[in-house]
Amino acid sequence: MNYKMMGRLIAQILLAEAAFMVPALIISLVGQDSQAILGFALSILVILAVAGMLMFFARKAKKGFYAREGMVCVGLAWIVMSLLGCLPFWISREISSYLDGLFEIVSGFTTTGASILSNVEGLSNGMLYWRSFSHWVGGMGVLVFLLAVVPVSGRNDGFTMHLLRAESPGPNVAKLVPRIRSTAGILYILYIVLTVIDFLLLIVGKMPVLEAVCTAFGTAGTGGFGVKNDSMASYSPYIQNVCTVFMLLFGVNFSCYYLLIMKQVKSVYKDEELRLYVGMVLGSVLLIVINLRGFYGTLEETIRHAFFQVASIVTTTGFATTDFDLWPGFSKSILLCLMVVGACAGSTGGGFKCGRLLLVFKSLRRNIQKMLRPQRIQAVRSNKQVVSEKVLENTNAYLAAYVLIIMFSLLVISIDGFSVETNFSAVLACFNNIGPGLELVGPTCNFSIYGPLAKIVLIFDMLAGRLEIFPILILLSRDTWRR
Amino acid sequence: MNYKMMGRLIAQILLAEAAFMVPALIISLVGQDSQAILGFALSILVILAVAGMLMFFARKAKKGFYAREGMVCVGLAWIVMSLLGCLPFWISREISSYLDGLFEIVSGFTTTGASILSNVEGLSNGMLYWRSFSHWVGGMGVLVFLLAVVPVSGRNDGFTMHLLRAESPGPNVAKLVPRIRSTAGILYILYIVLTVIDFLLLIVGKMPVLEAVCTAFGTAGTGGFGVKNDSMASYSPYIQNVCTVFMLLFGVNFSCYYLLIMKQVKSVYKDEELRLYVGMVLGSVLLIVINLRGFYGTLEETIRHAFFQVASIVTTTGFATTDFDLWPGFSKSILLCLMVVGACAGSTGGGFKCGRLLLVFKSLRRNIQKMLRPQRIQAVRSNKQVVSEKVLENTNAYLAAYVLIIMFSLLVISIDGFSVETNFSAVLACFNNIGPGLELVGPTCNFSIYGPLAKIVLIFDMLAGRLEIFPILILLSRDTWRR
Repeated sequence: MNYKMMGRLIAQILLAEAAFMVPALIISLVGQDSQAILGFALSILVILAVAGMLMFFARKAKKGFYAREGMVCVGLAWIVMSLLGCLPFWISREISSYLDGLFEIVSGFTTTGASILSNVEGLSNGMLYWRSFSHWVGGMGVLVFLLAVVPVSGRNDGFTMHLLRAESPGPNVAKLVPRIRSTAGILYILYIVLTVIDFLLLIVGKMPVLEAVCTAFGTAGTGGFGVKNDSMASYSPYIQNVCTVFMLLFGVNFSCYYLLIMKQVKSVYKDEELRLYVGMVLGSVLLIVINLRGFYGTLEETIRHAFFQVASIVTTTGFATTDFDLWPGFSKSILLCLMVVGACAGSTGGGFKCGRLLLVFKSLRRNIQKMLRPQRIQAVRSNKQVVSEKVLENTNAYLAAYVLIIMFSLLVISIDGFSVETNFSAVLACFNNIGPGLELVGPTCNFSIYGPLAKIVLIFDMLAGRLEIFPILILLSRDTWRR
Repeated sequence: MNYKMMGRLIAQILLAEAAFMVPALIISLVGQDSQAILGFALSILVILAVAGMLMFFARKAKKGFYAREGMVCVGLAWIVMSLLGCLPFWISREISSYLDGLFEIVSGFTTTGASILSNVEGLSNGMLYWRSFSHWVGGMGVLVFLLAVVPVSGRNDGFTMHLLRAESPGPNVAKLVPRIRSTAGILYILYIVLTVIDFLLLIVGKMPVLEAVCTAFGTAGTGGFGVKNDSMASYSPYIQNVCTVFMLLFGVNFSCYYLLIMKQVKSVYKDEELRLYVGMVLGSVLLIVINLRGFYGTLEETIRHAFFQVASIVTTTGFATTDFDLWPGFSKSILLCLMVVGACAGSTGGGFKCGRLLLVFKSLRRNIQKMLRPQRIQAVRSNKQVVSEKVLENTNAYLAAYVLIIMFSLLVISIDGFSVETNFSAVLACFNNIGPGLELVGPTCNFSIYGPLAKIVLIFDMLAGRLEIFPILILLSRDTWRR
């Protein structure tokens, strides 16, 4: 393993992280929050020191980087980034326990949005900004950012593809343009443009600037950290609807936007994953609206809450305009299923991904056809392209890992003794990077009820969910560390 | 499709079913339960009439039978057998609704043991016998019985293998001896011997004869219909412990017993699936006993209930000596995980099966190793034998179908509005052929709370679970019925 090269890359990520903290420091300076100023200033120094040491250790790095190192590097980078990124919370004492701070920042970077805070409004402005910014940069990926912007040493397409593949969501990462660096750049430009439009529309709705920034970050990354204790419930219907639309937009595969810009409207229109996603959203809203009749005063309100909640859950954002834990069983089951499926591959959303569900479904259908006609050779197609057997195999392995991790996590966190519904939805909410679950971890509650062991498992789940399991599983595999 | 051949086979199954009803009719005659006598007598006549019509239709059946027909035939046979097998309940008015009767008999044949009856003790002796007997014959398989005993027309090994494979549980059906008919015979002899020993040990414990017969049937088939309203709670510790031991024994792959008889102790000792099964049982009991400290009066009682409940759930029997729905969250989560995993392949137990879990786990590990070293070719081994890629592919497809069916069922049955925990555990309990779930379908409750639509879905789940999904999915596939 090329440890020096990995050290160098992680150092560069830490430099970026330190730079990302500067705006938060400035906001704290403007607000004269002395604890927060101390928190950010000291954290930046610590991060720079660690980055400096890594750079020194890696000063004579040899080139040469394989798939394995790409995976390991992404996993390690996210862990180091989180271990240091939570320092401001802890140093400023705004979150008194280090583990709670770690939970909060992992929840941020992984765009989960699960919080251990019961009083979000008690945080200083700088902390609120940093918390929400972690969604934004975590949504598209820190390494993707690095690839797009910073001149990474020894970069070549083979190397960067490994990184991009390890950090990007979905069964099959497509290059938009031949050069990876340009692909990463295009992704970030699209991401920034959409975020800015969202922000401006929120400002039009008379949302205060910092709240609009944080909400736009949380929407863009499909994270879900709110700046209010009641999430989005107290905002105007206009603002809620803007959020609904943008959550759904950020749940779409970004390559669709690129295709739209390239005027390939037809291939976007025919995209099977997009169709499943849109169909699932509309179907769920319809069923929930029928199920919720009489639950709210007006039909407008019912449709607004149903649309918002479906968008929030399917894109794994996790904002709430209402306490959906009080909804009837059928609506809750729909949300539970949406939690598992998640958004489109290649979006900032989490979950199993619509594209993967399609592949699982198609490969199951092929399996049945094979039983009926063992002689015939049949290929699985997606958007009329033959899907390689390797992708299908990986998708099935992904499902297996997904199920095993959920069972394992459920077992461990239930040591704390809460109900099955609470524990099960907590695991789903963290592993699929959603945020709120049901019952005791429902939209009006938080994750502070759990003990340290459960929190560590949930942190693992959030990281595994965001990085699509394998970069984290590989860190735990003995084979990885064997010479 | 060779419909005539299928008709002939189904007719033979119906003849067997009519014969199986005769002891129940005799018990009713002895007890002079006029309604029950009418129920069984009329049912036997109807079944014979249907069988006669099928025989007439299939009088000129051509030979020739393929995998597809084997699957379709098994699926159809089970459905027809259930549709007619519930007639005694309905005709005798002991269960007033036909759908409830169907639920009850499907629950019987599939060895689920979920009941819609709140007062089991109100049934006549004949009905109790028939209900429990359905577990016994369903556990090893009606077609396997036919293969072993009745001279099936046009039998040859290729044909019978298709049937055996479609009805027997597990990812990979092994022939014990070269001839299938002998294999089926050996299986049934082992089954009968074990059932008789169980029955005798219960009699030694001073259990009344009919109760001992029914309990032995329920244990052997890992079904779980009790003859008392409180399942096994009011029996003596001795009887409970006998049940624990035999439930565990019936959850073991029957080929292990054959190997023991053949004095191949070493290969039984080294069997990976058996080791996983034993390890899982002992580990679960240990954790539950620790978790339950202080819950019962004495340690003996705690260990007895823990062992009984773990055995009952992992083998998917579903007897209860205590209301485990009142246990703390951790213990309930362990039971929930055991529900999913289930017993060994080739046993009468249901669930995903230990052997399949091993394969999923191993193929996942191979996938990770492939990511680390893409060049190396690696085979998955089970008991040192290379597992064919086809079996691995089918196992993964099985997992996919398993997850999709659970999600779909959860959605539909939650229309009735119960809690997520109730609905989720109801689906798991039916699909894995266990019986009781948690909360409103817990061990002290029953499934009569659900509406007709939910009951139909749960009936589908029970059949799909018992027949290992594909024979039922194939019935629903358009390709099956296309010429």
